[in-house]
Amino acid sequence: MSDESEHPTPGSGSGADFLQLDRQTAPARGVTRWLVEGLRSAIADGRLRPGSPLPATRTLAQDLGVSRGVVVEAYQRLRDEGLAEGRVGHGTVITAMAGHLREPRPSPSSALPVPSAGAVPPAPAGPPVLPLPSSWSEPVELDLSPGLPDLSAFPRAAWLRAERAVLRDTTAGSLGYGDPRGDPRLRRQLAGWLARTRGLRADPEHILVVAGVAQALALLAQTLRARGADTIAVEDPGSLGARQELQHWGLRPVGVPVDGDGLRVGELTGTGAAAALLTPAHQFPTGVVLAPRRRRDLLAWAREGRLVIEDDYDAEHRYDRPPVPALQASAPDHIAHTGSTSKTLAPGLRLGWLVPPRHLHADLLRARYASDIAGAVLPQLVLAHLIATGALDRHLRLVRSRHRLRRDAVLAALREHLPRARVEGVAAGLHLLLLLPWLGEGVDDGALAARVREVGVRVHPLSWHRLAPGPPGLVLGYAAHPPDRLREAVHRIAGVVPAGGVALRG
Amino acid sequence: MSDESEHPTPGSGSGADFLQLDRQTAPARGVTRWLVEGLRSAIADGRLRPGSPLPATRTLAQDLGVSRGVVVEAYQRLRDEGLAEGRVGHGTVITAMAGHLREPRPSPSSALPVPSAGAVPPAPAGPPVLPLPSSWSEPVELDLSPGLPDLSAFPRAAWLRAERAVLRDTTAGSLGYGDPRGDPRLRRQLAGWLARTRGLRADPEHILVVAGVAQALALLAQTLRARGADTIAVEDPGSLGARQELQHWGLRPVGVPVDGDGLRVGELTGTGAAAALLTPAHQFPTGVVLAPRRRRDLLAWAREGRLVIEDDYDAEHRYDRPPVPALQASAPDHIAHTGSTSKTLAPGLRLGWLVPPRHLHADLLRARYASDIAGAVLPQLVLAHLIATGALDRHLRLVRSRHRLRRDAVLAALREHLPRARVEGVAAGLHLLLLLPWLGEGVDDGALAARVREVGVRVHPLSWHRLAPGPPGLVLGYAAHPPDRLREAVHRIAGVVPAGGVALRG
Repeated sequence: MSDESEHPTPGSGSGADFLQLDRQTAPARGVTRWLVEGLRSAIADGRLRPGSPLPATRTLAQDLGVSRGVVVEAYQRLRDEGLAEGRVGHGTVITAMAGHLREPRPSPSSALPVPSAGAVPPAPAGPPVLPLPSSWSEPVELDLSPGLPDLSAFPRAAWLRAERAVLRDTTAGSLGYGDPRGDPRLRRQLAGWLARTRGLRADPEHILVVAGVAQALALLAQTLRARGADTIAVEDPGSLGARQELQHWGLRPVGVPVDGDGLRVGELTGTGAAAALLTPAHQFPTGVVLAPRRRRDLLAWAREGRLVIEDDYDAEHRYDRPPVPALQASAPDHIAHTGSTSKTLAPGLRLGWLVPPRHLHADLLRARYASDIAGAVLPQLVLAHLIATGALDRHLRLVRSRHRLRRDAVLAALREHLPRARVEGVAAGLHLLLLLPWLGEGVDDGALAARVREVGVRVHPLSWHRLAPGPPGLVLGYAAHPPDRLREAVHRIAGVVPAGGVALRG
Repeated sequence: MSDESEHPTPGSGSGADFLQLDRQTAPARGVTRWLVEGLRSAIADGRLRPGSPLPATRTLAQDLGVSRGVVVEAYQRLRDEGLAEGRVGHGTVITAMAGHLREPRPSPSSALPVPSAGAVPPAPAGPPVLPLPSSWSEPVELDLSPGLPDLSAFPRAAWLRAERAVLRDTTAGSLGYGDPRGDPRLRRQLAGWLARTRGLRADPEHILVVAGVAQALALLAQTLRARGADTIAVEDPGSLGARQELQHWGLRPVGVPVDGDGLRVGELTGTGAAAALLTPAHQFPTGVVLAPRRRRDLLAWAREGRLVIEDDYDAEHRYDRPPVPALQASAPDHIAHTGSTSKTLAPGLRLGWLVPPRHLHADLLRARYASDIAGAVLPQLVLAHLIATGALDRHLRLVRSRHRLRRDAVLAALREHLPRARVEGVAAGLHLLLLLPWLGEGVDDGALAARVREVGVRVHPLSWHRLAPGPPGLVLGYAAHPPDRLREAVHRIAGVVPAGGVALRG
């Protein structure tokens, strides 16, 4: 046993994590002064900021192997200088005044790296550059971007109850690195729930729990790319975000037109693509359902060794039309079905599922493992609990009736303020498509959306989601706002749509 | 307004999500029979499995637009057939007997896709294939794989309290698609905490909250690769998992030897690599600290436009040596610092941080957004709360003392049962390195680990983590087990190490 030199007898005084203060570096005399200087220099270089707590005097003394009086004295000196203050029940914290002590930082330009041989090259120019969503950088008074459910209905109490049960019942072992496929308890619950509510044939062993549909698309795109695919057929119009994500991963999206029966499936073969991304149950953004004949043709296309990615993004929201079962059960070996809790609970949960064909399962699992190992365990167990107890079904019934009221409110407001507009895709989902036929095909709906933005309302111009040019339109998400706010938003939109409103402003 | 055809007057009876039952498809007479058949066929094709709940009769009747009696009668018929049963307080559920009704599934081979023109090509042969960890597929009695903390100490009560506070205080808007950089409240808390405990200079605006160090490495590898890098210097020995992950993303790891002073920094330039991955504060798996002179040389190497990835994977655990501040503060424009809560709270949280040089920030953010948009919001807010209230610091003190006791127990057991072994890396961290010098350099430690596995103990052979050959060794993670289990594990290991134990088995 030759580890003696490496681990001296355990004891106190081996140094503090706090500011990495090491007693060994203090002079034999003047330990208090050394400590005060250490604290002052941490304030000066910004490691301690206004509001930062100092450790309890006893704790720090023990870590440093000094008497408690040394630390008490050092804190007192900082207090005397106005750099720290004692707060009842909160110990000693750094004051706002301490901010003035900070040294100016080196300017970014002087700190820029100087490239040399073997240096990290600068970022390449040109596409694909994925734009970040403006929704998180620029607040707007009334954000009617599509895709958000009624977040005020998030079942906080049920979530907390489920979390309590999970924290009470789960084993310590469950908190380790989780199963990259997802926790087995959630996969079992999802298999049953997806079979019951969406008609899926999903073996729990082959479901992948993912961080939302976005992660499912990333993993699918990586896997297709690794197998040599370079194009993918997408709906036109179709989701801009999904298209940009596929591009980021090296797939070129080829648009296939959507009409009143959904994607024109007959045009798929001409694209030469080995895969297609579709929203068959509720096309984004038009809201149409893929017609039965098109479904059959699509399945036939897929069965020739191709892949259909079925993005079931908001199938749970349906108001006055029969449910549309998922495609997946008709050809589970050719369809990768994906969905999430983003439109039923909240996007901030980042919880979804991917039910892929078996022949892609191992590759997708490897890609997931290499991306972030596995999903967070606690939220997965909470969701499993919400499904098992029926709380998710109850929540869905509640939000569906709330969303229907909101849809009705926005429709009534559109009838009143924009009577000439054509409204599509209102039988289901969380958004509608507003067409403005009197404006003519050449009108720039991007400019129109910018004017809507100026009166405090964010909507998507339809052209964002188009590949080929087409008539102008606006996509309005209505689920995230109560009826009175929706009426206000429509009133404002009507005020800036040329010759569209009954009551023009000004 | 021309949407009339698309949305008939709202009302009940538009169909049920449950099995996508649509009243329109029922004959005018015999609705009950139609419903029974729909349920029976869902049982037969596996959409309803033993234990699946049926909806409340009133709910289903309302969805279908039929009288409640129809549903009550249909459920009764299933009960009569033994396919369903009523459970008090749980409604009606499918019985185990119903399993016999299931049709055999088509065999996987008959369902295999037939490739055709434009078909999804088969998976390419050859590396890099990331192996999945055996830890989640094969249980073992005593898993001493390195990397797990004491999960029984996970602060369940504090976590639940913080979650309650978060669910009470957070706005509905916070539950939307989050900031890809991470929630601003957590970034602020992390900036202060990392400055105080690790000496980092981190502006909250430039921290990225990530799903563990694994995601940080994935994003960094993608970004380096996109800028044309094809190699990366790594420690030898060093983490096998990290190396495999870098390989998955297209970077070739080039090993640089580690000695008693850490990485031999002088050999970095010879690799031609523009980036290096290091564990400077506690080298994995040897446990050595990068010596001061080597730190200076490494910073000089990085300042020539290169990138050092500082994996601070378990810096919080330190027993009898002074703290080692992070490298990052010395060259924030050349060092990407990453760490996580995996070794302090639990790996299952998948919560970590990446503090990158500014010039890589935008690319990393785009890569994160294209991978999964953003991290889950609730766990981020809970962690922010745990830092702000000091609960994380208190927890760290607790686990550090528990881990120290565990380390002492495993050391005492090794002294007793394997007195000839050399033990390294015990002053800090959650694992130690066991060297067996009397076995000779040529001995296969992989075979030795397999024999250890046969007596119910999992350890890593040192050779897993090596690139170039070297003396045999075993890596033992000790933090996840109480002292008596560790003594048992060491006793079993000693029993299979040739001529190593005092008391050989059998």
